[in-house]
Amino acid sequence: MTNEVIFGLTALNSWKLVIGRFDKNLAALSDEQLQKQIAPGKNRLYYLVGHLTAVHDRMLPLLALGDRLHPEFDDPFITNPDRALPDPVSASELRQAWTEVNAKLTAAFEAFTPADWLQKHTAVSDEDFAKDPTRNRFAMVMNRTNHASFHSGQAILAI
Amino acid sequence: MTNEVIFGLTALNSWKLVIGRFDKNLAALSDEQLQKQIAPGKNRLYYLVGHLTAVHDRMLPLLALGDRLHPEFDDPFITNPDRALPDPVSASELRQAWTEVNAKLTAAFEAFTPADWLQKHTAVSDEDFAKDPTRNRFAMVMNRTNHASFHSGQAILAI
Repeated sequence: MTNEVIFGLTALNSWKLVIGRFDKNLAALSDEQLQKQIAPGKNRLYYLVGHLTAVHDRMLPLLALGDRLHPEFDDPFITNPDRALPDPVSASELRQAWTEVNAKLTAAFEAFTPADWLQKHTAVSDEDFAKDPTRNRFAMVMNRTNHASFHSGQAILAI
Repeated sequence: MTNEVIFGLTALNSWKLVIGRFDKNLAALSDEQLQKQIAPGKNRLYYLVGHLTAVHDRMLPLLALGDRLHPEFDDPFITNPDRALPDPVSASELRQAWTEVNAKLTAAFEAFTPADWLQKHTAVSDEDFAKDPTRNRFAMVMNRTNHASFHSGQAILAI
């Protein structure tokens, strides 16, 4: 295995570990428990799952992996705070969307060569990427993995 | 810049981003505010800072970067939960320890070559490392970066 391959594989493992832990905690919760808030007056678990699903779904076009599966999640789960709008989907539909989006991303990451990882993401211009080659897919996946960890730390407070 | 170098640099940026955000939030808090709990009955911010400092301090020997600066932090901040023991240091001493430990780590990471990143960490045996070369320093730093993000998500609830 070359060094380049090991770098990519190590990042893939990190993504899988964080998503896998979240999956496990989510599977142990009932739909009713998803209505719990992480702390008094703060986001519900339902909202956090929707928020992470929407942010991960956005990675599909950002990493040039295809069209979004759930663009309709931006309004209720990114643009607006929890409880500002009626819940757009049932807990069961939300679980399904979470699983589908992550499965599609993980399958793509598993097929990435080192050169694929280091391609620019679509939110950066060719000019800026030439100046800073760390604005790549690898950086975006690490960023989103940390974002998922950030909200996992909150979700665990309600469990 | 070679692909290997870009991988290392991208991970370094991720570490710096997460620690930098935590630093900024911490600097905005008074010593009294560090006594706030992240949620009723949960850890105080003071404890989270101590916990992250202890876990990061442990990386020094785990990454073969030298002796620990604060081995005395394990007992109050890792082995025991918050408020089980008297606070071992003042808020000001805690801030100093947090800064020192991270500065030492970051300086070492900045000097890492790609081969340095991919060296095994000291918690894995030669035999296991031969089977799985992703059990390297790079993986440990990504893991600890995500751990810092996990607790950052909790800390933000008290701010």
